[in-house]
Parts: sequence; structure tokens; C-alpha cells
Amino acid sequence: MSNFGFTRLRLVNAYDVAYQEARSAVGASPILQEARNFGLLAEAIADCGLVVGATSVGHRELKHSLRRLEYGARALRQHLREGPAALLFGSEKYGLSNEDLSYCHWLVRIPARRDRGSMNLGQAVAVCLYEFVRSSAAASARPARPTPAPGGDLDRLTESWLEALTESGYVNPVTSHSTRLKLRRLFRRLRMGAEDCELMLGMLRQIQWKLESARGEPASRDAEPRR
Amino acid sequence: MSNFGFTRLRLVNAYDVAYQEARSAVGASPILQEARNFGLLAEAIADCGLVVGATSVGHRELKHSLRRLEYGARALRQHLREGPAALLFGSEKYGLSNEDLSYCHWLVRIPARRDRGSMNLGQAVAVCLYEFVRSSAAASARPARPTPAPGGDLDRLTESWLEALTESGYVNPVTSHSTRLKLRRLFRRLRMGAEDCELMLGMLRQIQWKLESARGEPASRDAEPRR
Repeated sequence: MSNFGFTRLRLVNAYDVAYQEARSAVGASPILQEARNFGLLAEAIADCGLVVGATSVGHRELKHSLRRLEYGARALRQHLREGPAALLFGSEKYGLSNEDLSYCHWLVRIPARRDRGSMNLGQAVAVCLYEFVRSSAAASARPARPTPAPGGDLDRLTESWLEALTESGYVNPVTSHSTRLKLRRLFRRLRMGAEDCELMLGMLRQIQWKLESARGEPASRDAEPRR
Repeated sequence: MSNFGFTRLRLVNAYDVAYQEARSAVGASPILQEARNFGLLAEAIADCGLVVGATSVGHRELKHSLRRLEYGARALRQHLREGPAALLFGSEKYGLSNEDLSYCHWLVRIPARRDRGSMNLGQAVAVCLYEFVRSSAAASARPARPTPAPGGDLDRLTESWLEALTESGYVNPVTSHSTRLKLRRLFRRLRMGAEDCELMLGMLRQIQWKLESARGEPASRDAEPRR
């Protein structure tokens, strides 16, 4: 609940010792501290204009209208603009009783495999609340691309690679042009960003400097390129 | 994983005694029994063409492309048509290390509150796998409506109410027409289904029978209406 920004927890008949201890513990979460405990479900939902029961498996013959979570969450969200509403979960062990279900206007079903038994309660709650806060727009929004490297940078990178490959004997100067074309295509295929291009250029400069040093040319500290 | 139909669990360095016990226990889930344990992350993902890291809070300065789960799950689903891919979770306590992250092509972020700390690992996994199996079409699909009651049935229901209300003194026969209009509007506003209309008619018949009996008319068992 906390992770997804929900705060109002109401419990029915929470007689669990572990719960009472967790609640009074030092550092208990505000949600737990402010949770209200009711003797009857009817009291817990008395101010709610809509009560939606959550179920992952329908092993009983359900007498309720059952909506997929994606649709149900949207309808519940719309209702919440007008007044309080409740999303009702049963106990981990028994789920919602027929008595509980009779207070529900309709049910949402988490689209889980029916043949795999019921879900862990904490996971079912997390999935339902996630569905509330997730954005349908985000599914089609492309992530921001890094600034693409300008063609000139890609060309410098290509030439730098080519020099390093020539120096190391991977290509010989005569046949190097086909390798140049390969590299050119490679960096465009990678859609390399400007920063990544700079990074790789710096690394290549260092490699070239080392290759040249190894060839016997005197390597002075002054000649070491800026990374 | 089981609830959402995923089967291939790979673990890295799972030395936990509790895990080994759970795995060898009688009745351990097939997922746990068939889970593969690797010494290194690189080995666990060696056959994967795409590795996506899952994170709920970005407290480190992330050097990765971060996509909202809604978008990321879609991209990952598309990749899975072509070959194996991995969704990578860190440990409950420490999350993904920088070393782990360096194996990821990009990251998905669960849209949780950044100020509320990290999510429970089991809940984070459930939310991510739910996003895989949920249907974007379901968000706009209206639930099937029950067969609406035909106008004739609604009229019978209205008259039946009116008789019961007259019998019980709620309306008198002279001013009953305005109540008839109220009832007529009510049942149309409720968009009552055919079955519910039948159900209420049956209940009203019983009430009328009781009211008539109470008035002193002899109530014989034969006169009790069919429910």
C-alpha cells in the first residue's frame, strides 16, 4: 500500500497476535498505526458507495459480475472521484466468504492461471494497487533516446578504429576500405549516442597511443592523450 | 511465477539454507524443483539475447536507460518471440549491484513511490509478471451485461410492488399513480436484468400472499404462490 501511495487500511476482525504486535512495535509504518479495526464488514464499509471484491481464482460458482482487473480498476478509479470506495480482500487462507461477497457490488479478477491455486495475499494486493497507479499511456510512450552522435563524430570514430586495427595488423592499408564501410554501418546500426561516441573515441585514442609506443616509438608522458 | 504461468527460474549463488530445504521438501513446486542455480550471473544469462533489470527505486545514479514497466514489459514480450530473455531481480536486501547492472541492456522501473523505500521482492516479481500477462484490451472491454428485462416484465414488477404497497398502506389507491411512475423510473434506472426481475417478482408474490393472509382472508397452503 505504501509503495503505491495508498494509506487507508481497514481491517475486519483482526484478532491476530502478530498483527497487534506489529502495530504497536517501535517504527511501525503509519499505515499500520492508523489502520482501523472493525468487528463487522458492514461497519468497515458503511461510508463506501462502492465495494469491489478481489479474487484470483473463482472456484466457487460466482454469483457476481466479474471484471478483469484492468477494467475494474478503471471503473473503481472513476468512482473514487465522487466518493469513498473499498477494495476488499479475503483472508489468505479462505478468501472472501459468501457473506463477504454479498456486500460487493462486483468483483475484479486478477488474470492469474486458474489451475495454479490462489495467490499470496500480499502479492495480490500489490498487483491490484499497481493496476491503479500504472499509466496506460506509459505502455506506448517510447523511452527518451540519448542525443544521437552527429555524422562527423561517427566518422572520426570510424577512422580511429581503422587506425587502431591497421596498427594492430587486423587490416592492411590496401584492403582497409571494406572494413571502413563495415565500421560505418556498425555505428549507425548501433544508433550510437553522442556521449557514447566520445567515450569510445577516448578509449581508442589511448589504445592507439599504446600501440604506437609498443611499436618502438618513444612514448613520452606528454604524448599520452587526454581521456 | 506459477500464478502467471512462468516456469524458468534461474538463481545466482543461492546458498540460502532455507532455499535448499524448500527445494528438497516433499511437495515443492515444480518451479522450485527445476530451478537452476549458477555461480555467476554471466553463466545464468549466457543464452539470453536481452537482459532487463527490475528496480523499484533508483537511489543510485543510474547509468542505464530506465523504462516504465508498462513500456518495458511490451518490449521484452516482443523480444521473447525471437529468443530467450531474462528479467533480473536483485536480492531483497541489496537489490542489483553495479556489477549486476552492467549485464543489463536496460532497466524497468515499477511505478512505485520513490519516497517509500524498496518493494518486497515477491511483490515486485508479482507486479512485473502481472504486467506481462495483463491485456491492454481488457481495460476498455466492458463486462457482459445481463440480459435486460423486457418492458412487460418491468411493468408486471411495477404493478406487483404497487399492490404490495397498497396492501401495506404505503400508498392509497387514489394517489397511487405517482408511486407507479416512481417505480417505473426506478426499475429502468437500475437497468434491471431479466433474471433479477423474475427473482423480485417471486419475492413480491410471497409478500402479497402474506399480506392478504394477515388481512384475515383464509390462507390455505394451496394458495401459497410458487417461488
